[in-house]
Amino acid sequence: MRRIGLFAIAVLVWPMVLLGAEISQESTDCVDCHTVINPGMIAQWKHSRHAQTTLGQAIKKPALEKRVSLSKVPEGLENVAIGCAECHTSNPEKHPDTFDHMGYSVHVVVTPTDCATCHPTEVEQYGKNIMSHAYGNLVKNPVFRDLADSTNGIQTLETVKTSLEPPDDLTNADSCLFCHGTVVRVTGTRTLDTDMGEMEVPVLSGWPNQGSGRINPDGSMGACTICHTRHQFSIEVARKPYTCSQCHKGPDVPAYKVYEVSKHGNEFSSSNKTWDFTAVPWIVGEHFDAPTCATCHISLMIDEEGEVVAERTHQMNNRLPWRLMGLIYAHAHPRSPDTTVIKNKAGLPLPTELTGDPVTEYLIGPEEQKQRKETLQRVCLSCHGVEWVDGHWERFENTLQTTNEMTLTATKIMLAAWDRGASRGLAHQESIFDEAIEKKWVEQWLFYANSTRFASAMMGGDYGAFANGRWYLSKNVQEMLDWLKLRTEGGDE
Amino acid sequence: MRRIGLFAIAVLVWPMVLLGAEISQESTDCVDCHTVINPGMIAQWKHSRHAQTTLGQAIKKPALEKRVSLSKVPEGLENVAIGCAECHTSNPEKHPDTFDHMGYSVHVVVTPTDCATCHPTEVEQYGKNIMSHAYGNLVKNPVFRDLADSTNGIQTLETVKTSLEPPDDLTNADSCLFCHGTVVRVTGTRTLDTDMGEMEVPVLSGWPNQGSGRINPDGSMGACTICHTRHQFSIEVARKPYTCSQCHKGPDVPAYKVYEVSKHGNEFSSSNKTWDFTAVPWIVGEHFDAPTCATCHISLMIDEEGEVVAERTHQMNNRLPWRLMGLIYAHAHPRSPDTTVIKNKAGLPLPTELTGDPVTEYLIGPEEQKQRKETLQRVCLSCHGVEWVDGHWERFENTLQTTNEMTLTATKIMLAAWDRGASRGLAHQESIFDEAIEKKWVEQWLFYANSTRFASAMMGGDYGAFANGRWYLSKNVQEMLDWLKLRTEGGDE
Amino acid sequence: MRRIGLFAIAVLVWPMVLLGAEISQESTDCVDCHTVINPGMIAQWKHSRHAQTTLGQAIKKPALEKRVSLSKVPEGLENVAIGCAECHTSNPEKHPDTFDHMGYSVHVVVTPTDCATCHPTEVEQYGKNIMSHAYGNLVKNPVFRDLADSTNGIQTLETVKTSLEPPDDLTNADSCLFCHGTVVRVTGTRTLDTDMGEMEVPVLSGWPNQGSGRINPDGSMGACTICHTRHQFSIEVARKPYTCSQCHKGPDVPAYKVYEVSKHGNEFSSSNKTWDFTAVPWIVGEHFDAPTCATCHISLMIDEEGEVVAERTHQMNNRLPWRLMGLIYAHAHPRSPDTTVIKNKAGLPLPTELTGDPVTEYLIGPEEQKQRKETLQRVCLSCHGVEWVDGHWERFENTLQTTNEMTLTATKIMLAAWDRGASRGLAHQESIFDEAIEKKWVEQWLFYANSTRFASAMMGGDYGAFANGRWYLSKNVQEMLDWLKLRTEGGDE
Repeated sequence: MRRIGLFAIAVLVWPMVLLGAEISQESTDCVDCHTVINPGMIAQWKHSRHAQTTLGQAIKKPALEKRVSLSKVPEGLENVAIGCAECHTSNPEKHPDTFDHMGYSVHVVVTPTDCATCHPTEVEQYGKNIMSHAYGNLVKNPVFRDLADSTNGIQTLETVKTSLEPPDDLTNADSCLFCHGTVVRVTGTRTLDTDMGEMEVPVLSGWPNQGSGRINPDGSMGACTICHTRHQFSIEVARKPYTCSQCHKGPDVPAYKVYEVSKHGNEFSSSNKTWDFTAVPWIVGEHFDAPTCATCHISLMIDEEGEVVAERTHQMNNRLPWRLMGLIYAHAHPRSPDTTVIKNKAGLPLPTELTGDPVTEYLIGPEEQKQRKETLQRVCLSCHGVEWVDGHWERFENTLQTTNEMTLTATKIMLAAWDRGASRGLAHQESIFDEAIEKKWVEQWLFYANSTRFASAMMGGDYGAFANGRWYLSKNVQEMLDWLKLRTEGGDE
Repeated sequence: MRRIGLFAIAVLVWPMVLLGAEISQESTDCVDCHTVINPGMIAQWKHSRHAQTTLGQAIKKPALEKRVSLSKVPEGLENVAIGCAECHTSNPEKHPDTFDHMGYSVHVVVTPTDCATCHPTEVEQYGKNIMSHAYGNLVKNPVFRDLADSTNGIQTLETVKTSLEPPDDLTNADSCLFCHGTVVRVTGTRTLDTDMGEMEVPVLSGWPNQGSGRINPDGSMGACTICHTRHQFSIEVARKPYTCSQCHKGPDVPAYKVYEVSKHGNEFSSSNKTWDFTAVPWIVGEHFDAPTCATCHISLMIDEEGEVVAERTHQMNNRLPWRLMGLIYAHAHPRSPDTTVIKNKAGLPLPTELTGDPVTEYLIGPEEQKQRKETLQRVCLSCHGVEWVDGHWERFENTLQTTNEMTLTATKIMLAAWDRGASRGLAHQESIFDEAIEKKWVEQWLFYANSTRFASAMMGGDYGAFANGRWYLSKNVQEMLDWLKLRTEGGDE
Repeated sequence: MRRIGLFAIAVLVWPMVLLGAEISQESTDCVDCHTVINPGMIAQWKHSRHAQTTLGQAIKKPALEKRVSLSKVPEGLENVAIGCAECHTSNPEKHPDTFDHMGYSVHVVVTPTDCATCHPTEVEQYGKNIMSHAYGNLVKNPVFRDLADSTNGIQTLETVKTSLEPPDDLTNADSCLFCHGTVVRVTGTRTLDTDMGEMEVPVLSGWPNQGSGRINPDGSMGACTICHTRHQFSIEVARKPYTCSQCHKGPDVPAYKVYEVSKHGNEFSSSNKTWDFTAVPWIVGEHFDAPTCATCHISLMIDEEGEVVAERTHQMNNRLPWRLMGLIYAHAHPRSPDTTVIKNKAGLPLPTELTGDPVTEYLIGPEEQKQRKETLQRVCLSCHGVEWVDGHWERFENTLQTTNEMTLTATKIMLAAWDRGASRGLAHQESIFDEAIEKKWVEQWLFYANSTRFASAMMGGDYGAFANGRWYLSKNVQEMLDWLKLRTEGGDE
């Protein structure tokens, strides 16, 4: 293990200097104790770039090689590594979770506000990313709140019907909010009995969590650590598809599963051991031979001549003309990352009507779609000819259309069931997601249409056919119809 | 990244010589522009063996080390690397997609006919492989065409029934034909506005596609690039199981998913970083410790003494006595790779009757089965004793039998439903795949029986029990029965 | 390939000495022939530590570095490598499968009894592991035997009902017993016609198998090779999660699938190529940055100061307070690894009543649970703070509770169906697992509750929501209710 050699050197000069970057006195104090208490945590940090570089060095890199986006180094940070204290004691006045710890004002939850000290552009972009609003977009949307509650709530049997008790906070944190983000709040303090005596620490509700739209004690939204894994913050990890798989793998959003068995995924799995995932900028063909999620959606990528193929973005959707997933129909991306501002004709915060018609005033228009498509396709064209890319795209947009049509058919069966009283649903205004037939309808769009679209977008083959794809779109319609026929009069052929 | 060092050298002498192999003037012309337009594509090729070897060198290798199978080097190819022009301008007269491009007669779609210049044996063998006929075996078989149409077509609701509109070509290309192969045809030309001025290029329907049975513009069948990924054509990638996963992963053919969690897959995943996937011939125990898909089904494999354990084959089924998947019942392999020639008693191109009885005159006989089995088992015996291999095989053939029996039971329920009018099916001669109950029947053989057999063949454990295996075979029969009982009279126990 | 260099050296001095460890004359005799017959098998062994170390060297290691647990080296084993003969001819009198082979008394099936010569502590611990009793806990428990038979048996159609024929031994070996273990018995002998003449060898039933509770010909239980893969016995392979995936991947026990897409799994997949999986003891932060299955459940782990974080255990459940899977309700771990000794109020060997109430006298108590929890949490605390670990644990135990409640609701629907005669079930005393509705009930606990719990335990995100998690818990209850309402009178809302 090459790393062992580095350690041998490091140990000699520890704790004053680690591989050239001086550690602040504050962080040295942290490390001295926590290396005993949480040895893995400290070791991960020691392996990180944060531990081995100073901000003074980072800011002097040529523009394309920069990993920080601040314009001026704050006082005191010029010549020290980014250690424990540099993050966990920054902006103390903004953090309600700040507590006195061994003479320092420390907070547990490092937030985008803290990260913005060195990475302001990335944090700003991420704020425009729909992912940063994932908490509110779910919880403050009555339709999706209903879906979540009917999924996570406790059902109990009363004669031949069930009653639903809404889920508790712990369950929500364990289910939808695991990815969408919890609300992290200080609810009090407690006293820990430690080897170093009693310590009073804040009690946090909604903790732990690294959801993409986590509501932090300081009011900021997001958890950079969901992709930039603590405490190594490795760009290699963030660029590999396993990071995205943490959230994007289920039947509702099978991006990783599709990628894994695509040609791109094959090349990644077969060959990535010789690729360079740490280089900035990332040079197509030199550092890697096939894209990961980050290549197409986030990373700064150049060619061997130094031409920029794609600018780095943490907004992500600025390479995405369409929104494939999560909603009843595929549609143009919403203008605002806060989707609760949308109102369709029924007054609901949904980007389409129940019939699939887009609520255009809240969605990006054709011009913006065209630009986003071209931005994305410049990545494709690095390795593919124009015919290939255009043919692929035509097929993909056709699939958005046909999966929307198959969803519409299922919706019409659902409407008929509500209409004829076979299902309570809309009539009773209780929930449109709590009955068996309603749940089948949800699967039509949330699972099968989504899977088919991801398969099309990433050439995932069977995921567009038998693996949660068109086979199920087709079967589900027939099963919904079967259900309705059994329960209504005179409707048979 | 070791590769960077090589590049440094390459750059010095580029474009005349790359690592010892001279690049033809024609290919140099291609590279000069396309390195700017498609840098990833060119870089992949530079990493390839094609870019670093001449045919003159390749043909002089000792027999077991040869990667080409031609007997004589065509004029002009002796001393140049296999570059862009060597493939994309070969056999111009055979290619309807040939167009004039910067003074060269170029075709976009390189086909098995082109590859056969250097690899004639492999192309000839592949022509006998059922995979090369995957397009026609699906589309020209009315039963499977019906299955595909009912899966991929658009269903719309009319009162309490649905009508089915057959799928368009884009949808087919995105679904079944993604793996089976599309028909690629020149449908016209279009003018591209490029940095180098206007260019007229052919428009291709069914493009892009790399399905195993792709019908090419030149009439040939197949796409070598499905496994030998462009433009690196890496034998390492082809030999790793991720390549096969591109098609063999869904519930209909879960070979990769089963392999992944088998003992062999475990060894591969845990240890392959130290194995040698580029050596030819491939020496068991020296280059690898456990088989991948290629080891058992394709590769030339020898032992450390130089004895041949298995000859290389691109026919593949010559190591396969049984056909496990895709059809209603497992059966002996068909004689002809073109399965549309088969006729069962009902006049359908199916290898068995609806009862499972094999249509023997179209299938290989016991002698051929025995020989194929022994060919395959010689691979097994490299690492396993006779008792192990025989015990495994007995269990596997028993599973073929029992899964066929469980399919027969489902078929009988289906027949009863057709008989009693609970399902239209056969009676109406419209489709036997479009109703909910019919789709459940399909899942019995296409998903659950197949999964159980793959699990048995590759010791995949739970895939033979709860993960799409016997649990579902058993549950599905009961659900079909439930369905039938609700809809028919007097049949209760 | 670094290994090739080692081979070059090895070949020079072979067969007398391999990398410093002398090979016994007996093993040399084995290798001489089998290197020709089974080259992969022999090569794997050559790569093993067994081939490269003597017991004399192994026993002299400092305590924390020891991989053997015997106290005194048996005569004759001091200075030889652990080769073929050392295992396959040991304890000949205990092995009914011993046969005369080229002058040696050889047995095919190496058992825990043989392994205990050098690893007695591990074998003893494993005997207390519920996994070693996996055969009897399934086959001798009438409830689970019924579940297995109704899953694996052959169903045939008789008018509008089915009859069930119990599964044959080959099917059982291919299904549940693949992981649980078969009974391996000598059923006779047969004569092989080999290149070296005729050989008489024992015929073994239930072979091959490497199930965790395999009943061996010598009466011992287990197959060490399920994790310590023959014939390399690599600790690297055993420590990687792919090994556990061989059994722990299906919907009934999706540990690997959850791990794969968790943060820990992400770090493993992204970074493990630079970790050291062969070091003993295993140092957190130095040898690895994130846990695999083995880290939390089995391995000896220390910190960089040399402090023991967790002792090695092959009992495994001594780091586990709760049993999540396989049974109707989550519950405290049973006291005895032989769970057939349990009797609930209904007289069945189940750890809870049908209502979920634990059968406490057979289960570990709160004190033991607390201790096991603390043992496990010491591993967590290597990298996580107290707040993190406590918050995670509170959420996890809440999920055990809520998934039990959702199972109870399904159970009550099932009871109502039995009660009202909509399902035969309990009334007919035939099987409680053979009807469609009963199988839905099974999925509630065996698939969906289990998946939700694993997702919670390992922060697997969507596996607690849409991927076999709460979505299905919720949908399944509604579908069971739908089923019941259709088939009973007057129960509608």
